[in-house]
Amino acid sequence: MAGAPLKPLFTHGSREEAADRPLAAEMAVAISYGGSTHAVMMATPEDLIDFAYGFSLTEGIIRDAREIEAVDVVAFDKGIDVQITLQADRSEALAARRRSMAGPVGCGLCGLESIDAAVRDVPKIAAPEFRLQVDEVDAAVEALSRAQPLFAATRAVHGAGFYRPGDGMLAVREDVGRHNALDKLIGALAREDIDAGAGAIVVSSRLSVEMVQKAAIAGSPVLIAISAPTALAVETAEAAGVTLIATARGDGFSVYTGADRIVAAGSDEG
Amino acid sequence: MAGAPLKPLFTHGSREEAADRPLAAEMAVAISYGGSTHAVMMATPEDLIDFAYGFSLTEGIIRDAREIEAVDVVAFDKGIDVQITLQADRSEALAARRRSMAGPVGCGLCGLESIDAAVRDVPKIAAPEFRLQVDEVDAAVEALSRAQPLFAATRAVHGAGFYRPGDGMLAVREDVGRHNALDKLIGALAREDIDAGAGAIVVSSRLSVEMVQKAAIAGSPVLIAISAPTALAVETAEAAGVTLIATARGDGFSVYTGADRIVAAGSDEG
Repeated sequence: MAGAPLKPLFTHGSREEAADRPLAAEMAVAISYGGSTHAVMMATPEDLIDFAYGFSLTEGIIRDAREIEAVDVVAFDKGIDVQITLQADRSEALAARRRSMAGPVGCGLCGLESIDAAVRDVPKIAAPEFRLQVDEVDAAVEALSRAQPLFAATRAVHGAGFYRPGDGMLAVREDVGRHNALDKLIGALAREDIDAGAGAIVVSSRLSVEMVQKAAIAGSPVLIAISAPTALAVETAEAAGVTLIATARGDGFSVYTGADRIVAAGSDEG
Repeated sequence: MAGAPLKPLFTHGSREEAADRPLAAEMAVAISYGGSTHAVMMATPEDLIDFAYGFSLTEGIIRDAREIEAVDVVAFDKGIDVQITLQADRSEALAARRRSMAGPVGCGLCGLESIDAAVRDVPKIAAPEFRLQVDEVDAAVEALSRAQPLFAATRAVHGAGFYRPGDGMLAVREDVGRHNALDKLIGALAREDIDAGAGAIVVSSRLSVEMVQKAAIAGSPVLIAISAPTALAVETAEAAGVTLIATARGDGFSVYTGADRIVAAGSDEG
C-alpha cells in the first residue's frame, strides 16, 4: 500500500534534510460513471469525493454539483475506484456523448478531429465587477504557502487554493498532480456552494493551458500561479477573459491578461 | 500560433527578471497510427520525431525503433498531428489490441479492470554489472543543468538527459511536460541506437510512478531526479530493479533502491 514511510538506503552529501521527509503517497484512481470507467489518473488518495465533483465539472460531465446523486470510493489492491452515480438525464447525456465519442484516445478519429476535441473552447468569464488589490494578490500567495500541510511534510505535492477578498483562503487541496489539485479544489467549492466568481484561484505550480481551462470552467475571474505560464495558457486566458497572474511569490508578480481587475492597494475599487 | 513572445501587461514588486523571460510554447500534439489518433497531449512542439519513437516504445506499441516505418509531422491551426506508420505486423498487433481495448478511457471497463490496465507490470532491468560512482551522480546532475537551453530561457520546462560514465551527457530533451521530456529522450536514444542499459537517465522533475515505468521500459538501470519520488515510484523501482536516486542537486543525493550499483568515487567497480 502506498503511503508507508519509505526511507533512503543511504544519503550522500548535503541532502540529509530531504532524506528525512516522508514520501508523498500516489495511487491509481479511476473515475467511473454508472460502472464504466471514464479515466484513470495517478493521484494523491485524499479528498477523492471533491475530486469526483471537480473532475466531473471540468470535464463537462456535469454543469452543477446537484447532478451527482452519489459517490462511492472503493479501494482495491492496486488503486481506488471512485464510482459516481449521475442523475438520470446526465447519465443519458454521457452515454450519448460516448456513442458519438469525441474523445482523444484510440477512438478512430484522425489527428485533426482529435486535436479539435482536445483543444476545447472555454467559456467566457462573467464577473466584470470583480477587483483584487495588489496587496491581496501577495496575501493570497502567502496564505496558500501556509495552508499546504502535505507539501510542508513532503515537498513533493502541488496545492490549489481559493482566496476571497475580505475572507482569506476558503479552501486548499493538494495532490501529486497539479491538475488533480485544481480539480479537487473546484469540487470542494462546488460541494460547499462557494461561488468561484467571487475570488481568485491560487496554484503552487506552473500554468499550462489545462489549468486555465479548468479555472475558466469553474468561473474564477482570476488565476494566480507561483511559477510561469506557457504561451498557450496566456492566449487561452485572454480568450476566456480570465486575469492571469504568474511568477507570484508573495513579494511581487506579473499580470499577463485582464489587468483591469488588479487595482492599487487601498483602492476603493478593490 | 503559440511561441510568440508574450509579455506581462505590468509587473508588481520584485519580479522584473521573471517578466523579461520568453514564455514556453505549448501545443496540442496528437500521436496517430495508421490515420487513427492514439492520444493527444499538450507538449512543447520540438523534437516530435523523437517523441513519436519514445511514446511508441514506452506505451508498448513497438519494442524496437525499426518497427516504425515513417513519421510525418503535420501542423494544423490548433495543434500538430504526429502521423506514424508502423511495420505491417506491428500495425496488425495494434489493431488487435484496440479491438480488445484494455485502455482506461471511456472504454466500458469497470474500475478494477481499468486500474489493472493502467498499473502495468514493468520489465525487470537486466544490467547487473552496471555501476556508477557517487561523483558521477553529482556530475550527471551538473551536466543536465548546463544542457537545458529552453529551461535557461523560460524557466518553465522540464529536462531529461542520458549520462554515460566516461562519455558524459549524450542527449538531453526538454518539454513543458515531464513525461513528454522523458519520452523524447527515450526516442532519441532509440533512434541513435544508444543502449540505455549503459548509463543513467537524469530528470529535472519529481519522480512519479510513470517516470519509473518509462525508465524501466527503456532499460535504464539508474534513474536520477532533482526532486523527490512518490512512495509508489520507490516501490515500482524496487520491483523493476531500477536504482532510484532523488533530491540530487549536484552536491549530494539520496539513494532509495538498488544501492549496490552506486560505488565510492575512484572505485575500481565504477
